[in-house]
Amino acid sequence: MYKDKILYRLRSFRKGFLSGEELARRTGISRTMVWKHISSLRGQGFTIEAVPSQGYRLAAEPDLLRKQDIASGLKIKVIGRDIQLFTTLVSTNTAAMELASKGAVEGTVIISEMQTGGKGRLGRKWISPKGNLYLSIILRPAIPTHKAPLITMSGAVAVASAIRSVCGVAVGIKWPNDILVSGKKVCGLLTEMSAEQDRIRHIVLGIGIDVNMRPDELPPDIRALTTTLSEAKGSTVNRTVLLRQLLRDMDHWYRQFLVQDADVLAEWKKLNVTFGRRITVSGTGELLEGIAQGIDEDGRLIVKQNNGVLRLIAAGDVTILKR
Amino acid sequence: MYKDKILYRLRSFRKGFLSGEELARRTGISRTMVWKHISSLRGQGFTIEAVPSQGYRLAAEPDLLRKQDIASGLKIKVIGRDIQLFTTLVSTNTAAMELASKGAVEGTVIISEMQTGGKGRLGRKWISPKGNLYLSIILRPAIPTHKAPLITMSGAVAVASAIRSVCGVAVGIKWPNDILVSGKKVCGLLTEMSAEQDRIRHIVLGIGIDVNMRPDELPPDIRALTTTLSEAKGSTVNRTVLLRQLLRDMDHWYRQFLVQDADVLAEWKKLNVTFGRRITVSGTGELLEGIAQGIDEDGRLIVKQNNGVLRLIAAGDVTILKR
Repeated sequence: MYKDKILYRLRSFRKGFLSGEELARRTGISRTMVWKHISSLRGQGFTIEAVPSQGYRLAAEPDLLRKQDIASGLKIKVIGRDIQLFTTLVSTNTAAMELASKGAVEGTVIISEMQTGGKGRLGRKWISPKGNLYLSIILRPAIPTHKAPLITMSGAVAVASAIRSVCGVAVGIKWPNDILVSGKKVCGLLTEMSAEQDRIRHIVLGIGIDVNMRPDELPPDIRALTTTLSEAKGSTVNRTVLLRQLLRDMDHWYRQFLVQDADVLAEWKKLNVTFGRRITVSGTGELLEGIAQGIDEDGRLIVKQNNGVLRLIAAGDVTILKR
Repeated sequence: MYKDKILYRLRSFRKGFLSGEELARRTGISRTMVWKHISSLRGQGFTIEAVPSQGYRLAAEPDLLRKQDIASGLKIKVIGRDIQLFTTLVSTNTAAMELASKGAVEGTVIISEMQTGGKGRLGRKWISPKGNLYLSIILRPAIPTHKAPLITMSGAVAVASAIRSVCGVAVGIKWPNDILVSGKKVCGLLTEMSAEQDRIRHIVLGIGIDVNMRPDELPPDIRALTTTLSEAKGSTVNRTVLLRQLLRDMDHWYRQFLVQDADVLAEWKKLNVTFGRRITVSGTGELLEGIAQGIDEDGRLIVKQNNGVLRLIAAGDVTILKR
């Protein structure tokens, strides 16, 4: 309450300094209480300069997502019908799967500023400090289960498109769905689903994009293979703008998938950086080496092994070997 | 307590009648209470004859499944590691999916004497009165999601094998996985799974077999297309014996699937009654007619349409047209 009043005063007078005395008088509290609220605001991420004998000045606001900023005037049809924003969650995917099983509407988007137990593919962790984007989208497509990989591919195409248009950097997709900028990973996708043999009940598309985090927030082994959008662009990226563009592009590509899934495959192929390259595939129980030839209509990678045998790969990790 | 004592007396003297007076004396209760417990036992399905001036005689016990009868000496490796038996459940599949998400061991089997909300394929109901078999098996195979249909096919092969060996009747499989006896359906399978794009977390194989139910317990439209095992065999089928054989066969075919899934496909093909027949496929948004040619390696039905075009069908209902 008093903190909001102090913030309001600081926001209305950004060009100069407001003395502690004046802030105390205008809000009706003691100078000691003003100082306490200033400390609290700093703890929330506000940068507040303090100069003796001059007072306080709001230098920068924390980069926080706000629902109204994300949702206003989006003009989308399916994705974002319901947007739920959290400061922290264990995992946006876990939260979304629970909401989906309780009947949440298709297009519900769960966003969190950070995750304490973010999930990656194949049971791995996804390190999720503040400053990035973590979101999960609930979908209910009337498709057979073997078409599910194309949902993840729609997500990859949408992320690549949004990053390219907002950050102006070149983007590639490495099979299965890693998003690469400058040859390094900036985004991972984790799709989870509840299904019967004949139909998908619901599917959750989880997206984690490394945007503005400090590079040293990742362990060195992961750091070597990844980058952030701000590092690639050379400046801080506005997460709200990126998120809005992503929701728009996802809305477009998801609806395109429902109408004509071959269009998603075609766009994915244009963006891919795997075809024609010598690769290894691990995580399938064997280490396989060969040339990536393409993907089949269900998104499986076609690899020509050194002995000439063609293999269809449904799951695994690809490493692109140096030329 | 007293009811158990009366049951014990009746069981020990099946060849003749026990008077109400003698039952009252031996259990230490009044003749009126004896009569009340006899009524209660009849309500539980015991057939107890009563002849004036002679007394009571236990003519038949209810056909109830008992855990020790099912489990003792089964000699199976995976299926049935944990057997949970219920008198009534909403749905064995729903119960199994919940247990699986809480970490239940692979091979856990959930059995219920009846279901109040039994589920069929594609969101349909599975009418589940007493007298039949309803069970769900929790599996955790390390396979990609597109191989999931082969789990259902393993189940179909196991059910067909168990029915054939216990009931001595000819059994066929109609794509996708209806079990037919005398050309009519006696069993349905419903597979549900929780999965990521790269891996299955858990899969629940639900099996409902119409064994001894009265035919009039089904509505006429379903009745026309279905039969029960007792109807086909001409006598009551021992459900415990059938269930034990099914668990054994499922254990065999599931482990065979993990080692060499082509063996499951080969056995399924031998049992199928769809290939070479003129069929219609519905439930896919269009009504498709043609000749069933076979299945591909992922279990999809190959149909040659009248115009010569081959179609791959992943989901739907097949009707075999008369020759």
